Amino acid sequence: MTIGIDMMGGDYAPLEAVKGVQQYLASHSIPSSLVLIGDKTAIEKLLDEHELASAYVQVVHAEQVIDMHEHPTKALKEKQQSSIAIGFHLLASGKMDAFISAGNTGAMLVGALFSIKVLEGVIRPAISTIVPKADGGTGLLLDVGLNADCKPEQLNQFAIMGSVYAQLILEIENPKVGLINVGEEEGKGNILAQAAYPLLKENKHINFIGNIEGRDVLTGKADVMVCEGFTGNVILKMAESLFEIGQAKKIKDEFFERFNFENYGGTPVLGVSKPVIIGHGISGAKAFMNMIKLAQTMIKKNVMQKMNEELS
Amino acid sequence: MTIGIDMMGGDYAPLEAVKGVQQYLASHSIPSSLVLIGDKTAIEKLLDEHELASAYVQVVHAEQVIDMHEHPTKALKEKQQSSIAIGFHLLASGKMDAFISAGNTGAMLVGALFSIKVLEGVIRPAISTIVPKADGGTGLLLDVGLNADCKPEQLNQFAIMGSVYAQLILEIENPKVGLINVGEEEGKGNILAQAAYPLLKENKHINFIGNIEGRDVLTGKADVMVCEGFTGNVILKMAESLFEIGQAKKIKDEFFERFNFENYGGTPVLGVSKPVIIGHGISGAKAFMNMIKLAQTMIKKNVMQKMNEELS
Repeated sequence: MTIGIDMMGGDYAPLEAVKGVQQYLASHSIPSSLVLIGDKTAIEKLLDEHELASAYVQVVHAEQVIDMHEHPTKALKEKQQSSIAIGFHLLASGKMDAFISAGNTGAMLVGALFSIKVLEGVIRPAISTIVPKADGGTGLLLDVGLNADCKPEQLNQFAIMGSVYAQLILEIENPKVGLINVGEEEGKGNILAQAAYPLLKENKHINFIGNIEGRDVLTGKADVMVCEGFTGNVILKMAESLFEIGQAKKIKDEFFERFNFENYGGTPVLGVSKPVIIGHGISGAKAFMNMIKLAQTMIKKNVMQKMNEELS
Repeated sequence: MTIGIDMMGGDYAPLEAVKGVQQYLASHSIPSSLVLIGDKTAIEKLLDEHELASAYVQVVHAEQVIDMHEHPTKALKEKQQSSIAIGFHLLASGKMDAFISAGNTGAMLVGALFSIKVLEGVIRPAISTIVPKADGGTGLLLDVGLNADCKPEQLNQFAIMGSVYAQLILEIENPKVGLINVGEEEGKGNILAQAAYPLLKENKHINFIGNIEGRDVLTGKADVMVCEGFTGNVILKMAESLFEIGQAKKIKDEFFERFNFENYGGTPVLGVSKPVIIGHGISGAKAFMNMIKLAQTMIKKNVMQKMNEELS
C-alpha cells in the first residue's frame, strides 16, 4: 500500500507535512509506504532534522509548486513538474494507491476529475465533510462544493457514496440518509429537492429517512446529509466558523472543539476510483497525520470498490 | 395607527399573546391601537384577568382557527371566519395598518401574497431574519423560505428591500450587501449566483460588497445577506439550532443568547404594501411584545413606502 503526499501544499509546507509524517510513523509499527513529493533538498533536510530515515519513506522530486491562488486548470497544464501534477501522474499510473494534498483545492479537484477515472456511472464526483453532532456522533455532509448546480440523480448518487463512506469509515451501521430541505414533508423544497425525494425514497441501496432541515444538521437526525454543493458549502463554512467563534469567545465546550477540522484532516473526493484527499490550506501536523490515516483506511476497506458495487 | 394581532396563533394562544399585549401596553404611555382577533369570550376573560381594559384595545371575534398543520390555501379558503382570514380582511380593507400572527406560517404567507398588494415591480415578496453577529452587530438575511427557487432579478430586489429594512429598522447606515456564495471572487457559484452578481454590482440603490461565504454569515462581513430561500432557510434553521444547542450544553455566552428568536419576535414579509409579521409557533409574551413594537416602528418609519421608492 503506497500513499503519496504533496509536501508543498498548504500554508506551512513542507514543515508541517514532515511533522505529520513523523506523527504517522511514530504511531504505526508497520506503516504504509509513503511517497513524499516536492522539493527534494528541502524535504530531505527536514527528514534528517526529524530523524525520519525510514524504509517506508521515499522522496520524489518536484521542481514546481502550484500556488494557492493559481488558476487550477491552467496551473496543472503549465506546471507538469509541480508536486500536484506529479502526484496525479503517479496515482494514475498505479505507482501510488492514494494521494493527499493541502495545496490548491481547485487543482486537486481538476486533477482528481481528469487524471484518474470516475467510478462507472458516476455523473460527477463529490466532496464531503464530517459534521460533529451535538449528541456526540458524527455525520457526513455532501456535496460541499464540487457541484454548485446538481441534477436530482446526482443527489441520489451522493446518497449512495455517502452511505458507503459512513458505513466503512465512520463505522455507522445502516446510516440514515436525509435530504436537506426547507421542510419535513415530501413535496417541500425547491425544484431539485422535490425531484430528488422520490429517487431517494425508491433507492434500495440506502436507508432514506426523508427530508431534514437546517435545525437537524448539528443534532444528529441523519448520518448522511445530502444536498447540492452550493448549500453544502455554505453549511460547511458556517460550521467551520463555529470553531473559530468558540475559540475567540473562549467557549470551553467539547462540541465546539470538535469543529476543529484538524481532527478530521481532509476531505476525500468521492466517486473517483482511488482515494484523493484534500486538506485545508492551514493544515498542521495533526491534519496531515489524520489524512494519511484516512487514506490508509480507505484503501484497506476497499471504499472505492464498495461504492462502485453499490452504484451499479 | 392600528395593529392587528391574531390571538389564536401559536402554541400558547391566546394566553401568551395577551401577556405580550400587556407588556407592550405597560411600556408605552401612548400605545398604538390594537385589534385583537380571535375567540372573543376567551380573550376578554384573559383581558379581565390581566386587568387590560384599555381604550387602545379592541377585540374582534373570529369563530374559527387555522391549525398549525392545515394546508394554507385550502384552510384560508374554507375558514373565512378564522382569525387569520379576518385579520387579512381588515388589513386589506384599511381598518388595520399591520397584522401579526404566530399561527400557520403558510397561511400567513398566502394571506400576505393574495390579500394585500405587493409593491409595484416586486416579483415575489420575501421573508427575512435577523442574524446575530459575533462582533455584537446584527445582520439581515433574506430570503429565508418564501422563494425556494429564484431568478437573479429576485435576489437583486431582496438586496434593495433588505437594505431599506436594515437602514430604517436595524439603523445601519449604508448597509453592506453581500451575496451568499461558495467563494469570494466574481464568477464563483451556481448559475443563479453567477447571474445575480453583475446585477447587484450595477445596482445603484445598494452598497454591494461582493460575495460572502458561509464563514462570513455569523461574523459581520455584510449587513444584508442575500440568497434564494432554500439556502436562506437552511442557514436560518441552523442558526436557530445554535441557541438550543447553547442552552442544552449550558454555554453561558451572550452570543448564543442572541440567537433566541424571542428577542426579535417575528419575521416581516418584505415586498408587500403593509407590514405583515409572522411569529414563531412557540412565541411567548416577549416575542409578541417585540412583534407589536416592530410593526409600530415599520409603520412609523414608512418602511414599505421607502422600499417602494427604492424599487422603482
